[in-house]
Amino acid sequence: MELGMVGLGRMGANMAQRLVQHGHRVVGFDPGPQAREQASQRGIDAVGSLDELVDALAAPRAIWLMVPAGETVDRTLAELRPRLAAGDVVIDGGNSYYQDTVRRAKELAVDGIAYVDCGTSGGVWGLAEGYSLMVGGDEAAVERLRPVFEALAPAPDRGWGRVGPSGAGHFTKMVHNGIEYGMMQAYAEGFAIMERKHEFGLDVARIAEIWRHGSVVRSWLLDLSANALQRNPTLDGIAPFVADSGEGRWTVAEAIALDVSAPVITLSLLERLRSREGDSFADKLLAAMRGEFGGHAIRHS
Amino acid sequence: MELGMVGLGRMGANMAQRLVQHGHRVVGFDPGPQAREQASQRGIDAVGSLDELVDALAAPRAIWLMVPAGETVDRTLAELRPRLAAGDVVIDGGNSYYQDTVRRAKELAVDGIAYVDCGTSGGVWGLAEGYSLMVGGDEAAVERLRPVFEALAPAPDRGWGRVGPSGAGHFTKMVHNGIEYGMMQAYAEGFAIMERKHEFGLDVARIAEIWRHGSVVRSWLLDLSANALQRNPTLDGIAPFVADSGEGRWTVAEAIALDVSAPVITLSLLERLRSREGDSFADKLLAAMRGEFGGHAIRHS
Amino acid sequence: MELGMVGLGRMGANMAQRLVQHGHRVVGFDPGPQAREQASQRGIDAVGSLDELVDALAAPRAIWLMVPAGETVDRTLAELRPRLAAGDVVIDGGNSYYQDTVRRAKELAVDGIAYVDCGTSGGVWGLAEGYSLMVGGDEAAVERLRPVFEALAPAPDRGWGRVGPSGAGHFTKMVHNGIEYGMMQAYAEGFAIMERKHEFGLDVARIAEIWRHGSVVRSWLLDLSANALQRNPTLDGIAPFVADSGEGRWTVAEAIALDVSAPVITLSLLERLRSREGDSFADKLLAAMRGEFGGHAIRHS
Amino acid sequence: MELGMVGLGRMGANMAQRLVQHGHRVVGFDPGPQAREQASQRGIDAVGSLDELVDALAAPRAIWLMVPAGETVDRTLAELRPRLAAGDVVIDGGNSYYQDTVRRAKELAVDGIAYVDCGTSGGVWGLAEGYSLMVGGDEAAVERLRPVFEALAPAPDRGWGRVGPSGAGHFTKMVHNGIEYGMMQAYAEGFAIMERKHEFGLDVARIAEIWRHGSVVRSWLLDLSANALQRNPTLDGIAPFVADSGEGRWTVAEAIALDVSAPVITLSLLERLRSREGDSFADKLLAAMRGEFGGHAIRHS
Repeated sequence: MELGMVGLGRMGANMAQRLVQHGHRVVGFDPGPQAREQASQRGIDAVGSLDELVDALAAPRAIWLMVPAGETVDRTLAELRPRLAAGDVVIDGGNSYYQDTVRRAKELAVDGIAYVDCGTSGGVWGLAEGYSLMVGGDEAAVERLRPVFEALAPAPDRGWGRVGPSGAGHFTKMVHNGIEYGMMQAYAEGFAIMERKHEFGLDVARIAEIWRHGSVVRSWLLDLSANALQRNPTLDGIAPFVADSGEGRWTVAEAIALDVSAPVITLSLLERLRSREGDSFADKLLAAMRGEFGGHAIRHS
Repeated sequence: MELGMVGLGRMGANMAQRLVQHGHRVVGFDPGPQAREQASQRGIDAVGSLDELVDALAAPRAIWLMVPAGETVDRTLAELRPRLAAGDVVIDGGNSYYQDTVRRAKELAVDGIAYVDCGTSGGVWGLAEGYSLMVGGDEAAVERLRPVFEALAPAPDRGWGRVGPSGAGHFTKMVHNGIEYGMMQAYAEGFAIMERKHEFGLDVARIAEIWRHGSVVRSWLLDLSANALQRNPTLDGIAPFVADSGEGRWTVAEAIALDVSAPVITLSLLERLRSREGDSFADKLLAAMRGEFGGHAIRHS
Repeated sequence: MELGMVGLGRMGANMAQRLVQHGHRVVGFDPGPQAREQASQRGIDAVGSLDELVDALAAPRAIWLMVPAGETVDRTLAELRPRLAAGDVVIDGGNSYYQDTVRRAKELAVDGIAYVDCGTSGGVWGLAEGYSLMVGGDEAAVERLRPVFEALAPAPDRGWGRVGPSGAGHFTKMVHNGIEYGMMQAYAEGFAIMERKHEFGLDVARIAEIWRHGSVVRSWLLDLSANALQRNPTLDGIAPFVADSGEGRWTVAEAIALDVSAPVITLSLLERLRSREGDSFADKLLAAMRGEFGGHAIRHS
Repeated sequence: MELGMVGLGRMGANMAQRLVQHGHRVVGFDPGPQAREQASQRGIDAVGSLDELVDALAAPRAIWLMVPAGETVDRTLAELRPRLAAGDVVIDGGNSYYQDTVRRAKELAVDGIAYVDCGTSGGVWGLAEGYSLMVGGDEAAVERLRPVFEALAPAPDRGWGRVGPSGAGHFTKMVHNGIEYGMMQAYAEGFAIMERKHEFGLDVARIAEIWRHGSVVRSWLLDLSANALQRNPTLDGIAPFVADSGEGRWTVAEAIALDVSAPVITLSLLERLRSREGDSFADKLLAAMRGEFGGHAIRHS
């Protein structure tokens, strides 16, 4: 079928290319000439404006947004909306906050435009291996997009599915990322314990590789860890500074709002905050308190 | 080559069978007649005493222990030791505490007996898919056992390796299980959040299946979760009671002993304790304290 | 001086009474006739409408709100605002969310009405012992209220202070409550450990009493714990069900928003959620997963 | 009565002095001449050997050990034991591991020597304010020491008590210190949140002082925090490096051994480990993993 792709960054361009490889026609818009140039070379009909994008698609249109979550989505929708017609469908494939998605779907429904949310997992490997797609929204609209999802997923009959109404896709992806935080932290702690056990001189890169085959903890994240450790077993030159996207925070907030205790996902987020704290006021106060009550020596910085 | 297997329980019998399938000869001992009978049917030369086991193997012998960690290992070694000769090698393939392993290796070295520890991961799937094997001990002894490891691993050149001296294999397996706790808890929390989000009516079994293909959180543990959820999506009839083996506790203790902060692995263990507490004194005291200071109503049981 | 008190519930009535005891005149409003009746007996000029309240006070007025946080505050302000004049000051002594306070202060400033937020700690003991007051808002307005704060605090020169602009008082009280969660949980865990150590037959009520005198962990919350344990050392009949007000949640959210890792305050909140979960889906899934991968027996409920 | 004090360090000398002030005779031993000199000036009969100590006391003797926990206690007991007689009592007032205490009590019982363990809280303030004393051991032996405990405690009838058999005193003190960790961490986190809220410019030293009077979180540890913050509100020059004594570790291990989930005490310990980690391998691996799967930029150190 025919699809418009708004945003030809790495994710958008890769997904568009995978669709093209599966025989779909993709008209792609990106404000950057270089992104358009590269997209053209990958078989995408690259255009320089939303007007052109909309014009190049026959109604009823399907337009996939692959733009940064937040304001950019709202701005893009504001520009798109007057150009679209009842019966069109817009898909948000990014990491939008699910409550924003619920709101946007309601707004677009006024004009008869369907709004489908698609939590997309797979990163840069998705082009080759396919993406895992968690889809939310109106059943008929999702069904209409079936060929798109079947092409993007690792296989037509697996790795994608409608999980619920508008917002459910992004909600599911949010939780997916929360789980990812917890898994990553579990591996990181385990490898740190082994790295510290100097008496055994463990080769953690080797161990990661061993675990990849047949062990209970094998996973795609372990594959990545093994890659990273193989290239740099001592992780020299990498700062112990862990960024976090919004999804972990949302998951933590959502768990609390739902009265679900999720200590591991929560602590995984907190450890990331902690990694960036540097000179912790809390720790300084603890040191100072110890100095007060017991005459414990305070190590001065 | 030729191997003695002590313990023909599920793990021991499966491993022996896999060795037999790869052309090795396995003499297996188990005190239970039924275990021996079943082993015989799987191509294992089952014998009824350690004497017979030792006699059936040509020196230098290789004897693999697959018995419960702890006292049983010490008792088995006490019985085996006088029957063995210098040059023989004993492998402990169970979940022994690594410090016990270090001690045992020293004791057996007095008699010239090599002691190799092999952390074994893979569970009941190992027979078909192969085991992940983390091996500790003397290099020459490990090298001599290479055909055994190559047969047990998923492939001859992957899924097994010597990770360090005596104890290193069991240490690595211990940490592996700690990581497993963390990963399991991360999934469990994520699915619990989704299950509680009633407004979306999420089908968690379906979501697990979607994630298995192409997502960042795909893993073997997710495959298991998907299986469990598919058979019983609401988990009806399963008590929220999570047992723990010793390995999680050891990992937590080891992390603290090494001054490594491992909050996620630690909390995963604590959540298991918590799952079994029932009527928590801590929570009752919190409720009582609230009653004291604010006149908050106490819900009486 | 003269003060209006809106809300003659336990906190409002106690605070009004303490002011009266210190020679101030308090006009109190409450919609409930019984609350007014009781207030009258405690020396408060109780009135049945906001109109009467405002009329009974000479301009510039000072009116203290002691009503439930949230909507009630907004509704009360909506009713009060048209009745007030420039130069009047309204104090919110409840546990309002500090961002609501910032908003309200801005709205009232349009009419020249000062809005002072006062985080109030002390509970039912405050009447006798005085309250700890964390005050936010315009310096001149706070200064004008000095006689009120000096009377409510344990002593004129201690236990109260302006901590910053509008919202700072409620922010500080919010963090105060977060700390309270952490302290309570620390005590609860410690007593639970002692209670479980059956071999020593520890009398936890006695221990709480010993600690109250001279120990490093002595505190007012320990005094409360000792009271609770003395009356009911085994906590029989108290459900292990711990409610939480909004302040703990806000503290956790604020810490994350500020990129401050606050694991103990956070876990204290999560433990309260956990205390109310009953049949945890996460724990059931963990049990089910264990059943999958190792043939571990599942305890059926 | 008459008491021997082994160890005239700060704690031992202070306690001896408090006993002297209450009319008791204290013979004190310390290997250091300076410690003996200072003790003499405080009314203690200082002697230079255990022989002299034992000789200077009439049988049945009471000898209080105030020496570092661990090996020093065993060595001191080994030296004392042949010099003592049946009917003598030895008190360990230090922070010994309770299981060591149980063992030592059994060993000394062979010779008819009573061994009393006394968990001692109060630090350098104890001299003036009295100590909180958690006593374990034989009832008759404890009763015999009543005058000593009454003098050391803040008041004869409060702040001390026999809590159980041998080991129970040190067990209780261990848990006391675990609670202390949790409380300290709760305060530290709360103050760190406030310090980070730059828009309010909160004066955390002032807030600590306000809370000391009438608030729900008032405590002796808050008094210390207020002192520390008053002297150095920004904690400049204090390294965020928090030491830990063994008691927190023992509490965590004990909780797990008892199957009690104590997340706040546990996390408080882990945060101390974390404060000393510097260049966290776990965090570096997390950063590297993120680099792998999403092309997230890695900040190089």
